[in-house]
Amino acid sequence: MMRYDEAGRYSGAAASDPADVGDGRRDQGRPGTAPPVFDRDFQAGLLDLFRWRRDVRRFLADPLPPECLERLVEIACLAPSVGLSQPWRFVGVETPEARSAIRAIFEECNADALLDQDEERAASYARLKLEGLKEAPCQFALFCDDATSRGHGLGRRTMPETASYSSVLALHTLWLAARAEGLGLGWLSILDPARVVRALGVPADWTFIGYFCLGRPAEADEVPALERAGWERRIDPAAVLIRR
Amino acid sequence: MMRYDEAGRYSGAAASDPADVGDGRRDQGRPGTAPPVFDRDFQAGLLDLFRWRRDVRRFLADPLPPECLERLVEIACLAPSVGLSQPWRFVGVETPEARSAIRAIFEECNADALLDQDEERAASYARLKLEGLKEAPCQFALFCDDATSRGHGLGRRTMPETASYSSVLALHTLWLAARAEGLGLGWLSILDPARVVRALGVPADWTFIGYFCLGRPAEADEVPALERAGWERRIDPAAVLIRR
Repeated sequence: MMRYDEAGRYSGAAASDPADVGDGRRDQGRPGTAPPVFDRDFQAGLLDLFRWRRDVRRFLADPLPPECLERLVEIACLAPSVGLSQPWRFVGVETPEARSAIRAIFEECNADALLDQDEERAASYARLKLEGLKEAPCQFALFCDDATSRGHGLGRRTMPETASYSSVLALHTLWLAARAEGLGLGWLSILDPARVVRALGVPADWTFIGYFCLGRPAEADEVPALERAGWERRIDPAAVLIRR
Repeated sequence: MMRYDEAGRYSGAAASDPADVGDGRRDQGRPGTAPPVFDRDFQAGLLDLFRWRRDVRRFLADPLPPECLERLVEIACLAPSVGLSQPWRFVGVETPEARSAIRAIFEECNADALLDQDEERAASYARLKLEGLKEAPCQFALFCDDATSRGHGLGRRTMPETASYSSVLALHTLWLAARAEGLGLGWLSILDPARVVRALGVPADWTFIGYFCLGRPAEADEVPALERAGWERRIDPAAVLIRR
């Protein structure tokens, strides 16, 4: 089962491994081709992962290994996608200029959002820590290439939004893998998508999905930060399931 | 770590457990409040889960335990959501009338999609098994309640689509939990959203996210079915990461 090497690097077959591609004549001899059985311990660990994941806003500034994002993107590529279109496009944001452009967009959008709050919520809103842009050692944006020909349009005719959804699935895959390694991720959406596309110089027809801060979290908790801050409470699961 | 009881039922504190809610005065004495450590075995198992998840179209007709969907929705509610808005709404589709309405919508939309295919792809498209609507013992639709006041609009001002994305995160959480229990899930998007809303009689302002078949899979594979069928290949992860 172990597919991390001593350096913590994923050492399984890459998705582009020729043995994996195409006509079903895969190498039955290599490790991992028998379906895994997920036992009760793993199921309990997975539940713990979901319960302790968190959307992180408070990071330690410790740098991450340089190949960390590359490795997590490799795992993200295991996510499902509509028609196997794999429209996710990750953009590591590394230069001081690019980071400063994102911070400027956030500050403006967040000031507008504060003005939009009801009078009784504004003070509470102003106290929330909504981003880790100054501290997070690794930052990246996620886009969706809606124009990709991959997948040949399968499943997208009546619901083109499934391309964006596929990118979200890749992000969530990365998020869970990161948390399992002790890293935290924070999703920032208080940004003007058109300005982010221009600031990062990506193709104008890519759809901006979100901006993400990644690093070692300054705290761990099984209660969402917004609940701890008194902003909102978790819903009763029975209230979100109806039957027809 | 074990939070499934002997019947396989999740027995941890529910999200609506009063001890979990609100002001931070949680019961430090109950199990599970210390942050879990995810070891190399768990990380390797998680990678196996991602690699063997699959979008399933071939199901055994064996019925699932009646409370299965309820339990999985409870786990789905652990997903992240914009502003803790939790806009996901699950609709179990159980009556023969409701299932037959969905099948009729699929058949019409799929016939249209086939007509849309390039001449050289049409035969290949027609051979794909795109749904398990006749066999899958458990079926449900997922919607997003974009009008929910939960979350008080936090994070949605410049990107209202983050509500739909939150619903997708809940679905993916459910998908992974199901696979870890040996169940398979298939996502069907070849449906007209407006017709699904009417057929299931849900509020007209809910956004249809997708329709899902759940059951014991007839096969397991680490290669996507669309790749095995020669429809599309997996991308080289290095091609989807750029840096700025």
